[in-house]
Formats: sequence, structure tokens, C-alpha cells
Amino acid sequence: MLNQPSPLDLTFQALADPTRRALVERLVRGPASVSELAQPLDMSLPAVMQHLAVLESSGLVRSEKVGRVRTCRIDAAQLSLAEQWINQRRMEWVSRLDRLGQYLETLKDEDGEES
Amino acid sequence: MLNQPSPLDLTFQALADPTRRALVERLVRGPASVSELAQPLDMSLPAVMQHLAVLESSGLVRSEKVGRVRTCRIDAAQLSLAEQWINQRRMEWVSRLDRLGQYLETLKDEDGEES
Repeated sequence: MLNQPSPLDLTFQALADPTRRALVERLVRGPASVSELAQPLDMSLPAVMQHLAVLESSGLVRSEKVGRVRTCRIDAAQLSLAEQWINQRRMEWVSRLDRLGQYLETLKDEDGEES
Repeated sequence: MLNQPSPLDLTFQALADPTRRALVERLVRGPASVSELAQPLDMSLPAVMQHLAVLESSGLVRSEKVGRVRTCRIDAAQLSLAEQWINQRRMEWVSRLDRLGQYLETLKDEDGEES
């Protein structure tokens, strides 16, 4: 049974490529047209558009075509989704280290009482 | 020309799967053996080991075999790498919104002076 990829699957998948991360890095600074996005990249326009399609299907990027110009912008909510998942893991990790630290303190105190 | 995937590529790639995220969620709470990790998952042991191999090659998970038991633990530094990349984007995004807000305030002030 193959499940549909979740928004989080698609977001992390979209971020797993240096060109797509470069596009996100550019778009957090403001909207840009497809040709503006392609300009600094050393690849063909169709290749850039393919990367943008992956970013769009993940929800990280939205685009709108007015006349002949397609303008892309970031969807910060989708980026937050990935950020929240990772932050949550770090908080659990830190709280585990705190508990370990407290436990080690208890051992030290017990040791102190015995000696 | 195919470049080698970077640590960040491999980390986001590793997180782009719900089973691998479940393994990370379990391992941030403390080290576990492969069979402990497999126990709550509805899949074969070889499938779990394949997911663990992806996590290990990304650097998110490290494992050590003592006798017949392989124990896995999280490498929080690798998780931080992904977190930092996303946090950095959010900070740029927020600072852009701040600048936009300041600009809108300027427009409002100018409008106020004119009326």
C-alpha cells in the first residue's frame, strides 16, 4: 500500500536539493519572476521550471501568471511547518539532556552523602 | 555533471519520509536497539533497517553493534544543521516583513502630512 506523501514529506523532499534551496533563499527576500530566478543559476530555463514545479507542489512556493510573466513568491506557512517539526525534536532532545543532567546531579549528591 | 549530495541534501532527504521521521522522533527520546525501533512500526525488519541506513548515511543517526545488538542514537548536530538553514530563512523573511511594514508606515505618514 502506497500512501500519498504528506505536506511535510513534500516540503522536506523539496528542500533536499541545492538548487531548490537557492530558489527558496532568493524568494524569502521577495517575489521574483521565473526569468529573474533563472538568471543567476547555471542551468536551462526548463530545468529551473522543473525545480519550481517541485517547490510549488510542496506548497513552499506559489506562482501567478500575469500577461507573459509568472511571478513566484514564498509561502512562509509551509516553511514554518518544517521548522516546527525540527524545533519540536530539538526541544525534546534538550529536555532529555536536562533530565539526564538532573539524574547525574542526583548520583553526585548520593555519592557525596556516602563519602 | 552530477555533484555529490551535501550533508543538508541528505538530511532533508532523510526527513522526507514518515517512517524515518517516526524513527527520529523515537531516537530524540533516547538510544534504542533496532528491534525496539522496529517493534511499533508496521513493517518488516529489513524495511526498518533500510530506513535506518538512509538516516545513518545522512548523519542524523549513528549506530554501534555490541554483541548481537545494534544500538542507534540521534546525532543532534546534524539535526541542528537542517534547523539552522530553516531558521535563517525565517529570520530573513521576518526582516523583509519588518522592512515592508516600515515602508508602509512611511507611506501612511506622508499621506497624513498631505491631508
